[in-house]
Amino acid sequence: MSTEFLSKVDEAIARAQALPQAERRAIFTAFSPERIRAEAQALQARKDAGEDLPLFGTLVSVKDLYDEVGEVTGAGSRLLAEREPATHDCASVAKLKQAGALMFGRSSMSEFAYSGVGLNPHHGTPSSAMVQGGMPGGSSSGAAVCVGLGLTDAAIGTDTGGSLRIPAAANGIWGFKPSQGLIDDSSVHPLAPTYDVPGPMAASLPLTRALAEVMAGQGLSTSVPETLRLAIPAGAFTDGLSPEVAALFEAEKARLMEMGHELVPVDMSAIGAAVGLNKIIVSVEAHRIYADDLDRLEEVGDPRVLSRIRFAETLSDAEIAEAYDKRAAIVAQFNAAMEGLDALVAPTLMRLPPSIAEVEAEFDRLNMEMLRNTSLVNLVDGCALAMPTPGLTPAFSMTMLVGVKGADAALFAIAERLTA
Amino acid sequence: MSTEFLSKVDEAIARAQALPQAERRAIFTAFSPERIRAEAQALQARKDAGEDLPLFGTLVSVKDLYDEVGEVTGAGSRLLAEREPATHDCASVAKLKQAGALMFGRSSMSEFAYSGVGLNPHHGTPSSAMVQGGMPGGSSSGAAVCVGLGLTDAAIGTDTGGSLRIPAAANGIWGFKPSQGLIDDSSVHPLAPTYDVPGPMAASLPLTRALAEVMAGQGLSTSVPETLRLAIPAGAFTDGLSPEVAALFEAEKARLMEMGHELVPVDMSAIGAAVGLNKIIVSVEAHRIYADDLDRLEEVGDPRVLSRIRFAETLSDAEIAEAYDKRAAIVAQFNAAMEGLDALVAPTLMRLPPSIAEVEAEFDRLNMEMLRNTSLVNLVDGCALAMPTPGLTPAFSMTMLVGVKGADAALFAIAERLTA
Repeated sequence: MSTEFLSKVDEAIARAQALPQAERRAIFTAFSPERIRAEAQALQARKDAGEDLPLFGTLVSVKDLYDEVGEVTGAGSRLLAEREPATHDCASVAKLKQAGALMFGRSSMSEFAYSGVGLNPHHGTPSSAMVQGGMPGGSSSGAAVCVGLGLTDAAIGTDTGGSLRIPAAANGIWGFKPSQGLIDDSSVHPLAPTYDVPGPMAASLPLTRALAEVMAGQGLSTSVPETLRLAIPAGAFTDGLSPEVAALFEAEKARLMEMGHELVPVDMSAIGAAVGLNKIIVSVEAHRIYADDLDRLEEVGDPRVLSRIRFAETLSDAEIAEAYDKRAAIVAQFNAAMEGLDALVAPTLMRLPPSIAEVEAEFDRLNMEMLRNTSLVNLVDGCALAMPTPGLTPAFSMTMLVGVKGADAALFAIAERLTA
Repeated sequence: MSTEFLSKVDEAIARAQALPQAERRAIFTAFSPERIRAEAQALQARKDAGEDLPLFGTLVSVKDLYDEVGEVTGAGSRLLAEREPATHDCASVAKLKQAGALMFGRSSMSEFAYSGVGLNPHHGTPSSAMVQGGMPGGSSSGAAVCVGLGLTDAAIGTDTGGSLRIPAAANGIWGFKPSQGLIDDSSVHPLAPTYDVPGPMAASLPLTRALAEVMAGQGLSTSVPETLRLAIPAGAFTDGLSPEVAALFEAEKARLMEMGHELVPVDMSAIGAAVGLNKIIVSVEAHRIYADDLDRLEEVGDPRVLSRIRFAETLSDAEIAEAYDKRAAIVAQFNAAMEGLDALVAPTLMRLPPSIAEVEAEFDRLNMEMLRNTSLVNLVDGCALAMPTPGLTPAFSMTMLVGVKGADAALFAIAERLTA
């Protein structure tokens, strides 16, 4: 009987326990070495019995939004920390366990998943794995830091406006925002159901895809043309970039052309102008979820999050209805603009990840800047991959590959082509 | 009997052991938990017996140049790794132990201390504590990374052209290059005796001073004027700065003026023009040390270091003699220029620390850039402190305070004033 896997688990536990306590708490909302060791032993026994386990031995942290039997789904909040532990694993956790992955701790997040930078006043804000004191990105902050530090092979998080891709970018790893509906999201605590989607992050593309396939319960491979036709958006995604990000994007475009792919400029000004719709829709849906808890949140909530929830109270019914109508039109426009194109390429973030101190000092502006490009993908109902930028130090994932809804398999095939 | 200290030691050992093995080897050339625990227990016994131990419980890593009884002084090289273990502690180690510090591992370095970026092909190059994949700085690379990661409270290293201050800068900590002769350097392996000096690094100014006082065997406190007269050099230290460093230095000058201090522009063009002298003098002195080992170094040495040693072979006796003469004149000029001034302020580095990948790709240029400002202090026979830049992320120590030879105590007093 091989004990390589059990040694790996022991080593990862030792590394997590050796973190300074404040940092460990800022990465994991719950971390039980006893539970992890017991589950590892059970998993090893399944392996030894000859069970087919495609993800055998993969350590996966679980964002504090996913129901996991016996654990409290706290959503990074004090409000929900008072709940009873979940009585069942949600679909994604169950499927990953079934495939041989080991759940390794519950990962920290922005309260209720409602911000893109990863600040959390309750359990603390972890430092990015790449820059000491750097913004971890959010809302799936601990998830990405885990993988960036090499504590886990992968992580599962959720994405409503960029919550998988922003932390992936800030920690130099892969982050996949699936098309809505690809992955069963039952028993994953919601923020804004119109946009919410569960998805994986990992240090490599093949592992990211392997997790996505298990979570989706279907293969995600397909063939794509030899020469790709890639949309380069104007009027959205590429306006207002910082000089550093503009230079990285220029270099990326040059690299793609050298590989022989076609870059097709596409006017997306109408989409760029509609970025504000997300703020309305997310706030309205989040307000519906927490309507009965607002008084309690005045006491125990993160005021930055509460004010974003309460933004819904300033909106008229007509404004809200109009936002949903406009969004439907924007989705149709995006799908039409992408006809005949294999994918869109854009910077993941408008600027390089700032420090935690900067986002604490200027939360509103920097949170908006971090979310701008990623949330446009939620707006157009697409799917996307944040891809590590080769040769960049600190390692950030500054290129985002975007597809229309349902193009998930093509996105993986294109990413493989572009990083081969 | 308190066991707080022993728990701290256990925790630091656990954290070091939890590092990925390649990273631990790149930080520590030797690391013996058994030895550290045994010495910690003996130290605790001295404490319990009521001995006066001003540095009790301070964890200090020891650069692989300092003789430490029972350890091989390998100078980060394969050549000297074959030596017998030292039979005595060198003066600095003995004094620090006497004062109650605990030696915590032997820290990695550029081979023979001969480069400013910290690359080492033998034991590996550690990542800066502040940026994953960032240059650690050298030659005292492991020393600064230890402190930056919080594995040790302090570190002792050496400085010939910046080897204490460059790694301090790249890891956001304090680094003190003492005046030559302040600290006994016997049984510290030499590189270029004209310049070599042992000294401390630490995360705080008071601890940096406390270590310097113990190593020097004398107090280093003095009084300085309320309003400081600070030299701002032109023609040296401030030419060719990167835009980022130029902006940081402008901000630092503005801060100093706001505090009410006088900034006095001082023309130092002659000093700036003489920076090349160091290359000659260090190479000539290093060549003398390794003259009998050059064949062996062709096999087991770092070629980057060997080519710098062999540079001496291209020099005529007249050129060498002229270099020493010119240097003496430069020292006199600097001392004259500093008359009536309390200290000089300059950027520690010309540009922000690059990545390890960048210094591997462009070693000669980046090594020269990293050493340029710090080595001018060795050239003028001064003393200097690399000071952490408040509010900078990643945390780097981009301001250097420089004094004439013997101004060590004043430098500490001025640094306290400027960071209060």
